[in-house]
Amino acid sequence: MEQDKVLALLNSVKDGGTSPEEALLKLKTQPFEDVGYAKIDHHRGLRHGISEVIYGEGKTTEQIAGIVSVMMERGQKNIMVTRLSAISAGELEKLCGLEYDPVSRIGIVNREPTASPHGLIVVAAAGTSDINVAEEAAFTAETLGNKVERLYDVGVAGLHRLLSHLDTIMSARVVVAVAGMEGALASVVGGLVACPVIAVPTSVGYGANFSGLSALLTMLNSCSGNVSVVNINNGFGAGYISSLINHIGE
Amino acid sequence: MEQDKVLALLNSVKDGGTSPEEALLKLKTQPFEDVGYAKIDHHRGLRHGISEVIYGEGKTTEQIAGIVSVMMERGQKNIMVTRLSAISAGELEKLCGLEYDPVSRIGIVNREPTASPHGLIVVAAAGTSDINVAEEAAFTAETLGNKVERLYDVGVAGLHRLLSHLDTIMSARVVVAVAGMEGALASVVGGLVACPVIAVPTSVGYGANFSGLSALLTMLNSCSGNVSVVNINNGFGAGYISSLINHIGE
Amino acid sequence: MEQDKVLALLNSVKDGGTSPEEALLKLKTQPFEDVGYAKIDHHRGLRHGISEVIYGEGKTTEQIAGIVSVMMERGQKNIMVTRLSAISAGELEKLCGLEYDPVSRIGIVNREPTASPHGLIVVAAAGTSDINVAEEAAFTAETLGNKVERLYDVGVAGLHRLLSHLDTIMSARVVVAVAGMEGALASVVGGLVACPVIAVPTSVGYGANFSGLSALLTMLNSCSGNVSVVNINNGFGAGYISSLINHIGE
Amino acid sequence: MEQDKVLALLNSVKDGGTSPEEALLKLKTQPFEDVGYAKIDHHRGLRHGISEVIYGEGKTTEQIAGIVSVMMERGQKNIMVTRLSAISAGELEKLCGLEYDPVSRIGIVNREPTASPHGLIVVAAAGTSDINVAEEAAFTAETLGNKVERLYDVGVAGLHRLLSHLDTIMSARVVVAVAGMEGALASVVGGLVACPVIAVPTSVGYGANFSGLSALLTMLNSCSGNVSVVNINNGFGAGYISSLINHIGE
Amino acid sequence: MEQDKVLALLNSVKDGGTSPEEALLKLKTQPFEDVGYAKIDHHRGLRHGISEVIYGEGKTTEQIAGIVSVMMERGQKNIMVTRLSAISAGELEKLCGLEYDPVSRIGIVNREPTASPHGLIVVAAAGTSDINVAEEAAFTAETLGNKVERLYDVGVAGLHRLLSHLDTIMSARVVVAVAGMEGALASVVGGLVACPVIAVPTSVGYGANFSGLSALLTMLNSCSGNVSVVNINNGFGAGYISSLINHIGE
Amino acid sequence: MEQDKVLALLNSVKDGGTSPEEALLKLKTQPFEDVGYAKIDHHRGLRHGISEVIYGEGKTTEQIAGIVSVMMERGQKNIMVTRLSAISAGELEKLCGLEYDPVSRIGIVNREPTASPHGLIVVAAAGTSDINVAEEAAFTAETLGNKVERLYDVGVAGLHRLLSHLDTIMSARVVVAVAGMEGALASVVGGLVACPVIAVPTSVGYGANFSGLSALLTMLNSCSGNVSVVNINNGFGAGYISSLINHIGE
Amino acid sequence: MEQDKVLALLNSVKDGGTSPEEALLKLKTQPFEDVGYAKIDHHRGLRHGISEVIYGEGKTTEQIAGIVSVMMERGQKNIMVTRLSAISAGELEKLCGLEYDPVSRIGIVNREPTASPHGLIVVAAAGTSDINVAEEAAFTAETLGNKVERLYDVGVAGLHRLLSHLDTIMSARVVVAVAGMEGALASVVGGLVACPVIAVPTSVGYGANFSGLSALLTMLNSCSGNVSVVNINNGFGAGYISSLINHIGE
Amino acid sequence: MEQDKVLALLNSVKDGGTSPEEALLKLKTQPFEDVGYAKIDHHRGLRHGISEVIYGEGKTTEQIAGIVSVMMERGQKNIMVTRLSAISAGELEKLCGLEYDPVSRIGIVNREPTASPHGLIVVAAAGTSDINVAEEAAFTAETLGNKVERLYDVGVAGLHRLLSHLDTIMSARVVVAVAGMEGALASVVGGLVACPVIAVPTSVGYGANFSGLSALLTMLNSCSGNVSVVNINNGFGAGYISSLINHIGE
Repeated sequence: MEQDKVLALLNSVKDGGTSPEEALLKLKTQPFEDVGYAKIDHHRGLRHGISEVIYGEGKTTEQIAGIVSVMMERGQKNIMVTRLSAISAGELEKLCGLEYDPVSRIGIVNREPTASPHGLIVVAAAGTSDINVAEEAAFTAETLGNKVERLYDVGVAGLHRLLSHLDTIMSARVVVAVAGMEGALASVVGGLVACPVIAVPTSVGYGANFSGLSALLTMLNSCSGNVSVVNINNGFGAGYISSLINHIGE
Repeated sequence: MEQDKVLALLNSVKDGGTSPEEALLKLKTQPFEDVGYAKIDHHRGLRHGISEVIYGEGKTTEQIAGIVSVMMERGQKNIMVTRLSAISAGELEKLCGLEYDPVSRIGIVNREPTASPHGLIVVAAAGTSDINVAEEAAFTAETLGNKVERLYDVGVAGLHRLLSHLDTIMSARVVVAVAGMEGALASVVGGLVACPVIAVPTSVGYGANFSGLSALLTMLNSCSGNVSVVNINNGFGAGYISSLINHIGE
Repeated sequence: MEQDKVLALLNSVKDGGTSPEEALLKLKTQPFEDVGYAKIDHHRGLRHGISEVIYGEGKTTEQIAGIVSVMMERGQKNIMVTRLSAISAGELEKLCGLEYDPVSRIGIVNREPTASPHGLIVVAAAGTSDINVAEEAAFTAETLGNKVERLYDVGVAGLHRLLSHLDTIMSARVVVAVAGMEGALASVVGGLVACPVIAVPTSVGYGANFSGLSALLTMLNSCSGNVSVVNINNGFGAGYISSLINHIGE
Repeated sequence: MEQDKVLALLNSVKDGGTSPEEALLKLKTQPFEDVGYAKIDHHRGLRHGISEVIYGEGKTTEQIAGIVSVMMERGQKNIMVTRLSAISAGELEKLCGLEYDPVSRIGIVNREPTASPHGLIVVAAAGTSDINVAEEAAFTAETLGNKVERLYDVGVAGLHRLLSHLDTIMSARVVVAVAGMEGALASVVGGLVACPVIAVPTSVGYGANFSGLSALLTMLNSCSGNVSVVNINNGFGAGYISSLINHIGE
Repeated sequence: MEQDKVLALLNSVKDGGTSPEEALLKLKTQPFEDVGYAKIDHHRGLRHGISEVIYGEGKTTEQIAGIVSVMMERGQKNIMVTRLSAISAGELEKLCGLEYDPVSRIGIVNREPTASPHGLIVVAAAGTSDINVAEEAAFTAETLGNKVERLYDVGVAGLHRLLSHLDTIMSARVVVAVAGMEGALASVVGGLVACPVIAVPTSVGYGANFSGLSALLTMLNSCSGNVSVVNINNGFGAGYISSLINHIGE
Repeated sequence: MEQDKVLALLNSVKDGGTSPEEALLKLKTQPFEDVGYAKIDHHRGLRHGISEVIYGEGKTTEQIAGIVSVMMERGQKNIMVTRLSAISAGELEKLCGLEYDPVSRIGIVNREPTASPHGLIVVAAAGTSDINVAEEAAFTAETLGNKVERLYDVGVAGLHRLLSHLDTIMSARVVVAVAGMEGALASVVGGLVACPVIAVPTSVGYGANFSGLSALLTMLNSCSGNVSVVNINNGFGAGYISSLINHIGE
Repeated sequence: MEQDKVLALLNSVKDGGTSPEEALLKLKTQPFEDVGYAKIDHHRGLRHGISEVIYGEGKTTEQIAGIVSVMMERGQKNIMVTRLSAISAGELEKLCGLEYDPVSRIGIVNREPTASPHGLIVVAAAGTSDINVAEEAAFTAETLGNKVERLYDVGVAGLHRLLSHLDTIMSARVVVAVAGMEGALASVVGGLVACPVIAVPTSVGYGANFSGLSALLTMLNSCSGNVSVVNINNGFGAGYISSLINHIGE
Repeated sequence: MEQDKVLALLNSVKDGGTSPEEALLKLKTQPFEDVGYAKIDHHRGLRHGISEVIYGEGKTTEQIAGIVSVMMERGQKNIMVTRLSAISAGELEKLCGLEYDPVSRIGIVNREPTASPHGLIVVAAAGTSDINVAEEAAFTAETLGNKVERLYDVGVAGLHRLLSHLDTIMSARVVVAVAGMEGALASVVGGLVACPVIAVPTSVGYGANFSGLSALLTMLNSCSGNVSVVNINNGFGAGYISSLINHIGE
């Protein structure tokens, strides 16, 4: 319950319109919305045009459909389902009008255009195998109302590919750097730009890559001071955080 | 060299004011400033009131003094030296007027007040042993011209300590969450706020803590979507990134 | 062989009813039951209403049926089979009347209601994907005669979900805290209650989760002094230990 | 704020004794103390005769003395300081009358005898090098008002040493099993008793012991269902949890 | 070339029967058989009744058949194929008369009874799931001509099971101790016997077992001085080494 | 753009043949080829007869065919596709005339004989299971125009097998040493030869091999000063580097 | 209590010389010595000329002296103290006549020549830095009455050093192979001999050696079937086991 | 013994100048120099102007002096001692005329100028803290007769520093890339040049650097095909291998 509603309730108690017992019940049945927790979510919805996100992996189509339908009843827009299989997506399309992006593996229900901030988010990916994760970041950021530029296959072993897009990178307000194998892209990009860089290690690679550990450690040890890191393959998190940053001050 | 200066140079070639050989030399001797690399540093200085930062650990007092004096000659302000021992600081105080903060172990030369953005950075630390790292973050952010609020000893094992400061946390534009041991603070804070959270694992703890590994993994696995992570004990990085974010849109 | 039986045997030797050689043989062929080892199991059965538990994973239906039938011949009640596949369960239903719970994946033969102690066991799980492990704990505790309350989907990234059940948690005699990913639930719960907390890390998560390692380390490093930890996904162990604790003093 | 106090507040609003704005402020400014968080600590003190424990490692004598003096002002009894060096202890003896146990490295201020529950806690340690950690557990449990029996040097490589104390072990309500190197003691003890076993891995050993990792993994993988584990060298935690368990039902 | 043959060759040079150039060629073309390397294998065959062993995993039936046929042509007896699938075994039965043991997954061609040394090898396994590995050890030792006694399901969580076979264990000349999960069997057995113990960790277990790592570390850290360790699941190695030891002095 | 071309462009500006704006555009649109980056690849093609290599794993047949066709249009020779499945190879045979080597799993399009340097590359592999990786190295080196000698099944547990080929090994200009399990081959070979040794750990093995980690660490710790290491299973890298070395000075 | 003594006791009960209650008490108070546990140690002493060994590391001189004096009172010979510092050794020399070997860091009290078995134990060490550990093995084996030959500095990077001692190695009944860094010595030696090889990894090395982990993994993964492994730096264990093996059949 | 000497010996046998028994003795007592092993070292000395290298760490000044004096007696030149402390160096200066380089910590005895090959070795280091390791590589390569160019402080976080030396890097025959922290330098350099790159991870860094593990994994996972890796901090190895490569074809 938001502050003004609590005040309204208290005034209603004062006026005798609500009994203290009824007021207690209302305060108690929504104990944390009362003190502001739900406002967070509400504000989040207003500002970024996104409701709570559903992590699709390990959930049945029925479970997802159930959660979505509750959220639709509440009138929520831009309901995102991440890590969604093509098969589930097909069924959810029929059940609740979900739109599916097969590369990022994200589905959206009740899509609604959102106003965009001025800043640009650049999503850079080292190799073609990192594109799924990169698209999860890019698609998430776009859904949250950001302008996104993609720079794919710009790994540091062929530096010219990255450097030929310097203008784009340097014009970004936030950069998402996605890389597997040695994960060096984040450090190089971090040194080229003055803005925050969100690094996403991917599990792409083999051998001493150890399922993304090598890229993760590389990124955590970056000597570029503007790099922070999310979990291996966590494209959604990077897209979400970069959107939060991009909306700051707007 | 910026685009308009290249054009001016080319016009000067055309007009005969500069010989092609001279022009070639100019283009060649500053090959990277030409395409904008040095601008980064320059812009950074103008915008955030900070020059390149000196990592003090493993450097002798003489080496540090040498680097500082070069930077002073270039007229740089707010020259920061991190991980600086009290002994070195004492000598540098005499050599170049360094001011020292013994808790964050940061020294500053040519300190100059910087204009502050509107947003608030909250630095939250789980335990009293995490304060050194937290102060590195807080002091860095302050030096970079930010308003910083400190919330120390708010670890999740005594949740009321954190929750009694909800208003402060929720008013932040960025939160830096510093924690050793189990590192759960980042996830809890991440769930309470709508802004970006920079998580700093510390090496505080013993046993299966493995020098900060436990806190690091906890933070990387946070189910709060707004948390990104820097290296173990990297208070400077967190302070620097939070400042970058706080200045966005200003 | 229990103490009074040994005494009886010795009296029988004294009386000539048993020759020293026969007595030696008896003492030798049951050397450890003599000094009380088997009593443990016997007592266990009497006190907690449970016989030895069969770990179903990696055993064929035939092997399980064989062990169960031996136990049934000894008249044992509440024979539990954990980590039992639905297919094996179906066959065992026919072979020996096993009842199966598909969520916890536990089967029971010769179920018999057991008297319940006064205390309440609360099983809290962070996410919906942790429910299988949580149910293994909850179902085990119930089978062992405990009153169990379930609190699912109360992960710390949405603290209000947990806090809205404070009364329930604080009324527990033992809490089982089940969590994957960052595993922070155990520390937060540990700080809220004054009773013992049994923490169960799960392998739920991805990337730097490393099959449950992140949650395991988090829980071992808990700064809440009342938290002890069992193996990753070991719901049965947590349910069993919480039952042992709940029966103390009864 | 407790339910009846909220109701009283609401009645006061109804009666005009409190304005809605004042009521809102009260509901908002004490959101968590209102719902009882601080009571937890209070209850804890009353019930177990222990205040918050001070982790001495990494704190200066002055810091410890400061915290102790605040607690003494609040009239707290049995203030424990763990991981306390002999030197600090000597100074604290003079500053605030601290009593010191050099083996467990625990200091106590305002010691006050506490009523003891009926149950026995057995602290078993594998080797003589594990005794420091074992004493931390034993001394903690004793300070918390428990009857404690010590079984030291009963490692499994000389099984007869352990088995010759079977009666003691089997009469325990809780066993704390402390072991470094291969850490097998917990499993063997776990199989001999029907009560909960709190296992404490120690960092005693060399080579592939990896600072206690081997004992930790052994204990987590125990096939004895009644074993739960605390952090490496965490004698205090084991003593504290075993005391919590031993007080259940009293 | 053996020493006496070299001398003969040199005498033949002296006598003019062989030219220096021919002698050089002979010395050069068989440089290592000359100094006895091939004799090792020959001796091994004579002494232990075993030829080189074929590791079946990852080899096609054709490859195995090819190697076997070469060995048969050389008249070798007791040709062992380890880690052999039932399907390959079926085909090899027809191709070259292989006999197959499905539990140990070992096949033998040209089996021939071998004289047995006096000593007894005891193969002890902690759980029923460790039996495959234990049988690989037992079957190997038997094939190499040893008397083997099996003690299965004698894990330390039910110590009486092991202790009821003390006579058997203590009569062994070598013990092979096979265990997964916490792997404590090796230490306990090591403390009970005065003979060498070959410990075999298995990958049986889950969670913090990490595919046998926990048992491996436990065994390496054994405080029983007579325990040495082979690779995870390496039943063959343990059987082979125990046979080598058992044949010493015969 | 190379230096002389920049000068020519500047002269053309001076002469009025090119407008300053046109010159700026040329300098800007090819910023990195200008300073020579693209020459690298060109030189590489000229010198070693190889174009960029396509890593086949994780790419669809269509993706590979697309990349190949672009490269063919540019007239590139000896287009290599590594880690190519037999199924994809079959389709690519029809689509673009790819030739496939099933052991090394490498496909080649537009194969063209290349002139060979004088030096010999020896590829030594410890076991028969390492042959796939060894062939990837050998086939790569051959495709790059080198004379290659294969020494397979020369693991150090049967030293005579390796030593009987001493002449071959000692005549090499570079040795590639491929080994799984304990990976000792690299050190032994490194001690026998005076030339560089490229060590390739393989994931062949089981248990404490940890997917090649044991061989990797062995090779990195080699006390033979001439050993450097590539990633686990990276046969291509070893073949490529050994070819680079073999072409030096030619 | 041994079998004949139990029979005697039972006969005494039969004869009335002992009351059943007295017999029960005797059976109960010595439950394990009764079944022979203490005999193990006694036998061990008789057969190998060694009493229980004192691990000196982490024990004070007083503690060691205390244990030694108890053992001397029992008339034990050849009391070994391992990992003993030179300083402690100096004091113990005066206190109890200890003889000290500074290289192996082993002290002996009541040294007494022991009869030697026929077999030879060869202790081979890869580098000069491994000699301390090797001497711990060699000195232990000698103290236990074995003939020992040392082969030091025979690492595989200079294979000729090892091969020039082939005769010695091949005449051994047991080989102890001590190596740090890549630890390849064990595999190579294992392939050269037909007897058991006890491998001792040492912590000698740097970088990716990780305190002996690389050598440990190498040795566990040895493809020589006759290699078993003890803990890192565990020279004593290797010497002790090799002595056990060497005494078999004598 | 070299081939022609064996032939001479055999001729001498034929001529009666040497008896077969004497010849046998000669062949036997130098069995491996006979077949060419010692030639390696001899050739190495002739070709590269270097004798066996002494690893100074962990050796006493006396031990080093002893080895050096034996080598001097054999007339060896350019005797290198690596990882030598300044104190030892001072003493060795007096004892045997050692010259010491304090940055690389290498000492040389009997220094003698060596003829240089045409190629250039470039040693690039990421940070100033990596210089010690880089100098070990550079100084080694120079001692072995190579022309070496140093590029220090060219880490990828400030790419312009590296790119401004493109000409130097691209003119190298071998590049040694030295980097700690995230170790990305090797990949970036590897992509810029067509020659072999020897990557040296250093232990410079903190936190999730894990003593050089992060840089090591980064380098092993490099997507630049021309990168091979040596052990952490192994500057000597990199210098030695780069010299071997640089001498190929000369």
